[in-house]
Amino acid sequence: MHIDDLLRKESEWLKGTGPKSNIVISSRVRLARNFDGFPFLNQANPDVKLKILKMAESLMGKSKFLKGTLFIKMNDISEVDRQFLVERHLMSLEHMQDIESKALVIDDKEIISIMVNEEDHLRIQILQSGFNIMEAWRMIDEIDNDLSQYANFAFSNKWGYLTACPTNTGTGLRGSVMLHLPALVITNQIGRVYQAISKLGLTMRGLYGEGTDASGNFFQISNQVSLGQSETDLLDNIEKLINKIIMRESSTRNMLMTKNKEEVVDRIWRAYGTLNTARIINSKETITLLSIIRLGVDLGIIKKVDMRTINELFVLTQPAHLQKLENKILTPDERDVKRAELVRSKLT
Amino acid sequence: MHIDDLLRKESEWLKGTGPKSNIVISSRVRLARNFDGFPFLNQANPDVKLKILKMAESLMGKSKFLKGTLFIKMNDISEVDRQFLVERHLMSLEHMQDIESKALVIDDKEIISIMVNEEDHLRIQILQSGFNIMEAWRMIDEIDNDLSQYANFAFSNKWGYLTACPTNTGTGLRGSVMLHLPALVITNQIGRVYQAISKLGLTMRGLYGEGTDASGNFFQISNQVSLGQSETDLLDNIEKLINKIIMRESSTRNMLMTKNKEEVVDRIWRAYGTLNTARIINSKETITLLSIIRLGVDLGIIKKVDMRTINELFVLTQPAHLQKLENKILTPDERDVKRAELVRSKLT
Repeated sequence: MHIDDLLRKESEWLKGTGPKSNIVISSRVRLARNFDGFPFLNQANPDVKLKILKMAESLMGKSKFLKGTLFIKMNDISEVDRQFLVERHLMSLEHMQDIESKALVIDDKEIISIMVNEEDHLRIQILQSGFNIMEAWRMIDEIDNDLSQYANFAFSNKWGYLTACPTNTGTGLRGSVMLHLPALVITNQIGRVYQAISKLGLTMRGLYGEGTDASGNFFQISNQVSLGQSETDLLDNIEKLINKIIMRESSTRNMLMTKNKEEVVDRIWRAYGTLNTARIINSKETITLLSIIRLGVDLGIIKKVDMRTINELFVLTQPAHLQKLENKILTPDERDVKRAELVRSKLT
Repeated sequence: MHIDDLLRKESEWLKGTGPKSNIVISSRVRLARNFDGFPFLNQANPDVKLKILKMAESLMGKSKFLKGTLFIKMNDISEVDRQFLVERHLMSLEHMQDIESKALVIDDKEIISIMVNEEDHLRIQILQSGFNIMEAWRMIDEIDNDLSQYANFAFSNKWGYLTACPTNTGTGLRGSVMLHLPALVITNQIGRVYQAISKLGLTMRGLYGEGTDASGNFFQISNQVSLGQSETDLLDNIEKLINKIIMRESSTRNMLMTKNKEEVVDRIWRAYGTLNTARIINSKETITLLSIIRLGVDLGIIKKVDMRTINELFVLTQPAHLQKLENKILTPDERDVKRAELVRSKLT
């Protein structure tokens, strides 16, 4: 397996086959873990970082759950490849910075990904298609238990797992769900959702996590604290809230189709018309229009395109993906032309 | 022949077959004539107006050139029908006001139209497809000579033909050409064209004449004075200037295709995409997008639509036309839906 193979196949989470996949893109659980007896990364010198990298590499080789995974050292790959991995949600934007001794472990289905030397020594992530947070938890728990046989993770009986940032201390767990909420945005209800979430100790972010905007009406909801509750309680809490948001989005979609049908249908078809004919299109406009078409596919207005194609286009039209597809560096202007070509070829 | 028949056939000037029809929509010549011994209309009482109407009706019956024409009294037809005639450029907006004793004479090809009791007793108009102002003059001169056999038109040896407004005195002639100048608009050259025109004693107006805006990049250029020159000198003057504008528009279109090809092609296809998919669309957006597509057809970018269809859509998508096609009164919202339907059905 090689990074480039990812380009030619579909990530598990993009298939659009998971539960409630008309509204939920993906569910993700991640655990922060640090090797006992080693300083956190903000205090580690290059030698220590390298040692951790080597420990991590050897550890991965031992786990039966990580057989066949790829261990990618960040400074072995190009800038475009790193961007490519971020675009596929396999690693964070931060993992592209200061790449010395950083690595990423991924399996060929892109369900498992482990960042080495990001904020913590290990950040283990399971990504599932649709609303499937408990299955993600089941898998990550299994991997964590398995890895714990071969490594000592920093743990305090009082605090639980110790992490570089105190917000992750305790379970080291973050559960997050990526939602597509066009109807709540169109009807200006998203502000209220945001308020409700904050009160419950959860947080709402854009497509690429912290500090990114909610382009395409995509919202990532996750827990803010990971201390004081068991993992399953934390995830239960998220699951219940997400269920309510899904119901609200769903009923609002129905409401739009009864009360504003003509306007909604017009908007959806215009988005389709533009994507199907544009010769130059930037990322932002593409995401905005694909988002509207995604709603149209769910509402049964657009029948000639399937959800999988739309999900795939969200990923393929991003800068690093376009450059890997073309197998060369492209200027932003060149990308806008290639993006338009790609979208047209996939939609028709 | 009946007004409704016009709906089911094509006006001569819409065929898009005349000379330079990629840039020139139509050429028009009109003559202002008043019956000798009768006051101008601004001083005529209702009885006099009615007398003029009857004189006009009897006169039309005598001319061999007006055999088979329709004599339509404005208060015999509906508001929608009057609007319909304005939309087809067969009469002025003013002719819809104070309709008592007003009438319109038209032939079935919509080449000849004569307004009775508009600003002058008679306003005779010939409308030709494309850049064909001299042919329009030849026809109108023939009709004028013929009518003069049966009527005495107010004429002074010193001033020429006498008219209600002094700007029409002399020849009573106005020549005007409707131009489609998208390239000059896109490249911000239209201001300079406007200045050049003003200096030469000509004037530039929008789609429906005085006081209307240049939506769809359509501009109507005509002479401002009709005194002190012979008819053919006046028309020669217009013709020469229009030729220069046509050359400028044409070279600018070529320039756009060499220097900004991608942007232009993108804009044209997006316009096509929107018109082909919209479910709700107003008049203004329709005209704007059709204008871009018209450019695209001329540049050979859009091949599946012909110029005739585009020209026809400019007319058919207007409010009165839509209502006559549906055979009922429609609210603006209903028209926006019907307009979108009509455009989609004609473009695909």
